[in-house]
Formats: sequence, structure tokens, C-alpha cells
Amino acid sequence: MSNNLHPSFERDVLIRFSHCDPAGIVFFPQYLVLFNQHVEDWFNQCLCMNYAKFIGQRRIGLLIVKLECDFKAPSKMGEKVMLGLGVSEIGLNSFSLEMICHTDNELRVFARKTLMTTSLDTNQSVPLPLDLQTQLQRFAMLN
Amino acid sequence: MSNNLHPSFERDVLIRFSHCDPAGIVFFPQYLVLFNQHVEDWFNQCLCMNYAKFIGQRRIGLLIVKLECDFKAPSKMGEKVMLGLGVSEIGLNSFSLEMICHTDNELRVFARKTLMTTSLDTNQSVPLPLDLQTQLQRFAMLN
Amino acid sequence: MSNNLHPSFERDVLIRFSHCDPAGIVFFPQYLVLFNQHVEDWFNQCLCMNYAKFIGQRRIGLLIVKLECDFKAPSKMGEKVMLGLGVSEIGLNSFSLEMICHTDNELRVFARKTLMTTSLDTNQSVPLPLDLQTQLQRFAMLN
Amino acid sequence: MSNNLHPSFERDVLIRFSHCDPAGIVFFPQYLVLFNQHVEDWFNQCLCMNYAKFIGQRRIGLLIVKLECDFKAPSKMGEKVMLGLGVSEIGLNSFSLEMICHTDNELRVFARKTLMTTSLDTNQSVPLPLDLQTQLQRFAMLN
Repeated sequence: MSNNLHPSFERDVLIRFSHCDPAGIVFFPQYLVLFNQHVEDWFNQCLCMNYAKFIGQRRIGLLIVKLECDFKAPSKMGEKVMLGLGVSEIGLNSFSLEMICHTDNELRVFARKTLMTTSLDTNQSVPLPLDLQTQLQRFAMLN
Repeated sequence: MSNNLHPSFERDVLIRFSHCDPAGIVFFPQYLVLFNQHVEDWFNQCLCMNYAKFIGQRRIGLLIVKLECDFKAPSKMGEKVMLGLGVSEIGLNSFSLEMICHTDNELRVFARKTLMTTSLDTNQSVPLPLDLQTQLQRFAMLN
Repeated sequence: MSNNLHPSFERDVLIRFSHCDPAGIVFFPQYLVLFNQHVEDWFNQCLCMNYAKFIGQRRIGLLIVKLECDFKAPSKMGEKVMLGLGVSEIGLNSFSLEMICHTDNELRVFARKTLMTTSLDTNQSVPLPLDLQTQLQRFAMLN
Repeated sequence: MSNNLHPSFERDVLIRFSHCDPAGIVFFPQYLVLFNQHVEDWFNQCLCMNYAKFIGQRRIGLLIVKLECDFKAPSKMGEKVMLGLGVSEIGLNSFSLEMICHTDNELRVFARKTLMTTSLDTNQSVPLPLDLQTQLQRFAMLN
């Protein structure tokens, strides 16, 4: 976890049977699904932007272009873990998030991902919509 | 939905991006993952049995032997749906659940599934543990 | 497996780490994903209809309306299993498939599913396209 | 793709309906599932080590500790893509792989992942088993 990350949008999540592999721990792509759902909740609950409408009606894609993950310790079925999220960069047509999965005393996963806004009709990169840009800046300033 | 189903363990769940297919609706195996998670919550919250310990420590499997589903109407990304669950049968080494996914005014999925208790060490069927049997009967009587 | 099923479109598939749950056996929704992929291969290789174009360009959905599964025996990581498929019913705007997963000497899963053709633009049921109807009848007659 | 990567273990794979999201392109965690399956095939077919036995019988885990991905261009349902794999580092208790997903003329994803060998009984790191070390070195030398 970078020193300057203060992830303020946090939610807990239960590690479920369906997340786990034959070793009884989270199959790592499932962390990325969980992080994706956390971004969805953050849009809906914190940025006041309806994620499903953003994608489905405004037809703006959030295309991943870069992902870096450090897996520090495995998570087991039945554990309650916290997911946290911070904005690390706001560009013209992309933004970067730092995300963590942790318990009270242990970091499990640190991830940094960069998402590019695209038009779902042309599949080309588009500038960050103004409302998204505003919300990202507001969130970044407060946190 | 059978007439005599009064599913009393209900929780709402958001239909997420990761549940949906290129048609923008829930990819049907995801309903089965959601129902599985609902059974997990029901064990933890309603039967007072820790699902992860039941599987992981007591090494008892809940092996599906039968599944029937009616898909009545599709669910879309961003919708909030309700999941409900009722016990329809308690056998010696298996039990059956009726599950629904619905909104306020529309049934989306009705499913009936039969789960057999097994030993995860021998992979053979075992009788329902007494505490599970008791909890199932208590739940069935109240609902 | 019904007595009159002679599934002639068969392919083998490896049970992979990612299909398996903490009990080391296939997590059952994964069978349904595998069966879906088998329908895809059957369209492409046997019905001579490009599945991706059928959905993506012709905008015809194959919406599941009914599913019945018998899980006869679990499958383990590393096993090679066979998937088979037969057409059991051809209706005006739907058709039914019988599908099996088996090894040389053991039936693992038997499933019957009914798929309805829909317009992805209106989400309404549409009649089976003529070419699909023709291919289904040809396949059903030969098998 | 790093300049010195000559991924020699290549297999093609069809982008399926179940890999794709509401935007009609691969949902990125699915790439990581596909890469995982590619590692499985590489163990089985190229390193002459049975992946399922390695995990299930010898009880050695391949725990991911680091992952970096560049997503260069999206992949669509129905496309045939190539997966390739190279060994970039062999340590005492871990090794690193470079993996790509590409078509004839376009790189789609470049990933680098580091896997640590663990005991599935103690969940502690263990040295690379000698046979795995030998096979990795043989593969790295030839490629």
C-alpha cells in the first residue's frame, strides 16, 4: 500500500464458497471481480453516479488499460475482509484507482488500476465526462 | 412459484456488471451463484450455523443432486432484486429448497434444488447432522 | 439420460482448477458454463451457424426459460470428461436440448434446457429463424 | 510485450459468450482465468507435469504474489486469439511468467505474474520442487 493512500470508501465483504479454489482460498481473479463491484458501489453511493446508467444508457465504457496487483496474503472462505478505494490520478480520458483488500491487521491485496473512458458505440477513447471529472476531483480532494 | 412457498429468508441484491452477458442481462449461471450465496447467508444469519466452518472444519459437503429452474423474465444490470428461500423437503441425508428471485411485481426465477450431505473425506453420503436437521425443522415450521 | 437420447455432438473437456470449489470438485454453475460453451461449439461446428454473429450481428438472443439438471456424480480437477448434446424438441419460438457430461463409464450430469429465441432490440420472443429451424431439424433427423 | 520474450508455448482459444460483458468484450478477469488455464496446459503438455496431481496430490500450491497487466486492445466475442507464455525468472521458491494474448496482427494483453510455491498443508512458502525447477530451466533454455 502506498504511503499516501487513504482509501475512504470502504465496505466489508464476506469471502464466499464461490470465491474459493481447491486450496480453500480466494481464486485471485475473484478479487478483481470484487474490486469491480466495489467501484460500482463507489459510483452509486459515493460519486452519486448510477453505474448501470453510465454504462448502459450513456454508453460510456470504463476500459481497463493497466493493472498492477500485489497479493500479500491469502484470504479464506468465511472471512470478512474490507475493500477500500482511493483515486491516485485523474487524466483527460482516464483515471487511476488504488484499491486494497485487508482485515483489521493484515493487508491482503493491493491493486492499482487505470480505467479509460470510451464510447461503447465507436469503441474509441473519449474525454472524461464533466460530471465524472468533477466527482473524481471532489472525492480526491476530500480523501 | 409453488402456491405453498412462503420464503421468509429474503435479501435484496444488486444486479452487477459482472453478472451480465453481452445482451446486458444476467448470464443465467450467475443466478445459481447468487442463490448459492443466499444459502450461505441463510446458514449464517438464520440457521445460526457458520457455513464456512460447516464445510471447511466439519468437512461436510452440500452436494447438489437435483436442480430445476424456471426463468420467467430477465434481470438487467443495475436492478435491485430480492432473493427468497424456503425449505420444501427434509430427508435423511438430503433436503430441498425452493428459491426465488423477484422484484416487487415480477417473478424472475424460480428454482428448486436438492442438496445431499456428504463427507468431504470419503465423498460418501452421510445423514443430516442433528443440528442441521433441527435448524431446518425449526425454520420449516416457522415459515 | 433419457433412453432415446443419442447425443452425437460430443467433445471432451478438461476439468480445470478454475472450475473447482474448495471441495476439489466442479462447482455446479461451472457445468452450466461448460454446457453453454458446448452449445456454442455445436452452432459453429455442427449447425454451420456462427454463434457470435447470431447473437452479436443478427441480434437474436437465446434466452433460457427452463432448466432441469440431475447431478449423478461429482467431477474432479484434472479429469477429462465428455460433453454431449441432443435436440429433444423444436417449437415455434423455442427449442429444447438434452445435454450430458460423462466419462467412459459414468454419467456425471444430465441436463435439459429450453431456449427461446428473442430479439435483442425489443427483448420479445421471435420465431425461430428459418436457417436455425432447418439446421435443428437436420441435426435432429440425423441423430 | 518485452523485446526478449519469445513465448513458445502457444495455443489458440475462442472468445466465448461467457467471457464477455455487457459491452460485448472480454470482461478482464476472464483473461486471467484464461491465462491460468494456459499455465495448466503448459504444465500438462510442455513441462510433462500433471497440474491437477501437482496441486491435488502433492499438495503444492502455486500462489500468485504479483501481477502486472497491460490491456492494449479489447477482444470480442467470437474472435480466435492466441495465448503465449514465457518464463522470465526462476527463483528459489517462486518463478515469473510473461504471458500474452494476441491475434495475428495485434497484441491484446501482456501480463507478468509471479507464482510462489507453497505447502497446501502449512500454507507456507516452500522451495521449488526439483522436478519443477528442472523443467522450468529446460523450458527457459529452449525458448
